[in-house]
Amino acid sequence: MVYERVALIGLGLIASSMGHAIRAAGLAQEVRGFDIDASVREEARDVGFCTEVCDTLAEAVSGADLVVLAVPVGAMAAVAAEMAPHLAAGATVTDTGSVKQAVIAAVGPHLPEGVHFIPGHPLAGTEYSGPRSGFATLFRNRWCLLIDDGVDPAALQRLRTLWEGMGANVDAMDAAHHDVVMAVVSHTPHLIAYTMVGVAEHVRRVSDSEIIKYSASGFRDFTRIASSDPTMWRDVFLTNKDAVLDILGRFSEELFALQRAIRTEDGPLLHDYFTRTRAIRRSIVEAKQDTAAPDFGRSGGEAR
Amino acid sequence: MVYERVALIGLGLIASSMGHAIRAAGLAQEVRGFDIDASVREEARDVGFCTEVCDTLAEAVSGADLVVLAVPVGAMAAVAAEMAPHLAAGATVTDTGSVKQAVIAAVGPHLPEGVHFIPGHPLAGTEYSGPRSGFATLFRNRWCLLIDDGVDPAALQRLRTLWEGMGANVDAMDAAHHDVVMAVVSHTPHLIAYTMVGVAEHVRRVSDSEIIKYSASGFRDFTRIASSDPTMWRDVFLTNKDAVLDILGRFSEELFALQRAIRTEDGPLLHDYFTRTRAIRRSIVEAKQDTAAPDFGRSGGEAR
Repeated sequence: MVYERVALIGLGLIASSMGHAIRAAGLAQEVRGFDIDASVREEARDVGFCTEVCDTLAEAVSGADLVVLAVPVGAMAAVAAEMAPHLAAGATVTDTGSVKQAVIAAVGPHLPEGVHFIPGHPLAGTEYSGPRSGFATLFRNRWCLLIDDGVDPAALQRLRTLWEGMGANVDAMDAAHHDVVMAVVSHTPHLIAYTMVGVAEHVRRVSDSEIIKYSASGFRDFTRIASSDPTMWRDVFLTNKDAVLDILGRFSEELFALQRAIRTEDGPLLHDYFTRTRAIRRSIVEAKQDTAAPDFGRSGGEAR
Repeated sequence: MVYERVALIGLGLIASSMGHAIRAAGLAQEVRGFDIDASVREEARDVGFCTEVCDTLAEAVSGADLVVLAVPVGAMAAVAAEMAPHLAAGATVTDTGSVKQAVIAAVGPHLPEGVHFIPGHPLAGTEYSGPRSGFATLFRNRWCLLIDDGVDPAALQRLRTLWEGMGANVDAMDAAHHDVVMAVVSHTPHLIAYTMVGVAEHVRRVSDSEIIKYSASGFRDFTRIASSDPTMWRDVFLTNKDAVLDILGRFSEELFALQRAIRTEDGPLLHDYFTRTRAIRRSIVEAKQDTAAPDFGRSGGEAR
C-alpha cells in the first residue's frame, strides 16, 4: 500500500491503465476518478477501474493523498485552478502530460503551500483513447520520467514506489531536458507520421483503396502512430513548440541531404547512412524496449 | 503442383520464405536455389528450404520452368545477362524487386525469345535479411503485385496461382503505376524513417542511452523500418528516383505547413489534420492489413 486514496482526473487510456494497475497490485486503499465528460464517467463506472467515480472534481480530490492529472496539457491550468481549494494538506499532485515545462507553468501557480507537485510522464501508451482502452500491464517494463527540480525527496520516493509497483522503471530529470528528449524520441516522430499519412491521402494518382491494401509495405506503421488522440497531440505541439521546431529544422536539413543524394545518385552515401541507422535498432531490442520478433510479430515469424 | 522446377536466385528473406511456402504447400516438384555468396549458399543448405542449393547460376536455372530473381535491384541486369543462355524455352522469369520500371529495363533486354517475363513484387517483408530470416507464412494475406503490360495471359495466370498458393492476394497493374504507388506507401516512408533515426543520433543534448531507453514513446517504430537491408534500399531510391523525389517534395510542403501551424500556434489546423489521419488507420485495420491490437500487440493489451 503506497497511498491511502488516489484521485485520477481525466479517465482516458493512462488513468484507466493506472486504475487497473493500482488495484491489481494493491497499491492504494481507494481509487477515486473524475472526468469532465459525463458519458466518460458512465463508461468508467462500467469498466470498474476505480473504487468510485465522482461527479465533481472537488469530491474526487478531497482527502486524496495523491492526485493524478491525466488530462490534455491544454486543460491542466483550468483543472488545477478548480481543484486547488479542495486539496488535502501534504497531498502530492502529479500529472502524466507529454510535456513538462508548460505543465509546470500551468499547474504550479495554482497549488497551495504544503502540497507537493511532482510532474511525471509515463512513456507508455497505445493508439487508443478512452476509459475502455486501459489495461493493467501498460506500464510494465516502460519508463516513467519524474521531474525532480526542487521537489521534496520523500514525496518523490513515494511516487517512484507507486510507479515501480505498476511495473515501470523510473528516471528523474529536469523539465527542460525532458522536453528536448521527448521532442526527439516522440513529438517529432509523431508529427512526421501525421505528415506522411496526410501526403498519402492527397496523391491523386494513387487511390485510397491502394493505400489501404498495400500499406503493409511500410506505410501502416505510420498510420498507427498517426491515429493517436488529436487533442493530446495538438497540445503537445503547441506547448513544446521551441524544442519541436528545433528538431524539425534538423530533420529537414537531414532529409534534404538524403534527397540530394538520391538526385545526384550518390549510392555510397545512401548505403552508409542506412547501415548506421541499423545499429540503434539493435540497441533498442537489447534494452528490451521493443520486441525482436520480425515485423513486431505481426506476420507470424519467430523472434530470433 | 503449379511448376515442375522453381529456381530461386538470391537466397535472402524473400527467396527463403518462398522456398518454405512452396514446399509446405507442395506447389513445385523441385526448388533449386543459388546465391552469389558461398557462405549464404552454405547457410541455405543448412536451413533446407530448397531441395538443392546449386553452386552455379547456370545449374540453378537450367531446366526450371520458373526462375525467381530475388536479388537487389542493382544486381538484376548482371544476373539476367549471365543466366539468359541457360534458360529453358517457355520458362517464366519473374522477380521480387521493389521497383518495376528499372527492373524491366535491366532484365528485359537480356531474355531470349520464348521466355515469359512477368515482373512481380510481394508486399511483404520484415526488418531481417538473409537465408535464416524466411518463414512460410510471410506472404499470407499480403498483396503480391504482378506487372501485366503485354505479358502472356496463361503464364500470368500460372504465376498468380503460385502466389495464391503461398497465401498471397494478387493484383495486376502496369509498371509505371506500381512505382508511383510504392513511392507513396513504401519508399518515402522508409526514407523518412531512416532520416528520423539519423537525426536522433546527431542531437548532442540527448544521449544515445536516452534515445534507446525512451524509444517506446514513438521512435522505436521508426527504428524497425530503418533497420531494413541497406543495399536493397539504396537500390530502391536510385532506381525509383523520379517518383520518390516527387513524393518527397509533397512531403516537405506538407511538413512546412504543419511546422508553420506550430510556429503560429494554429491549434484548430493541427487538431483537424490529426483527426483526418485517424480514419485511414481504421480502414487499414478493417482491410486486415494490420492488427487492431493496441501498439501492434506489443504491450499486452487486447485487440478491440
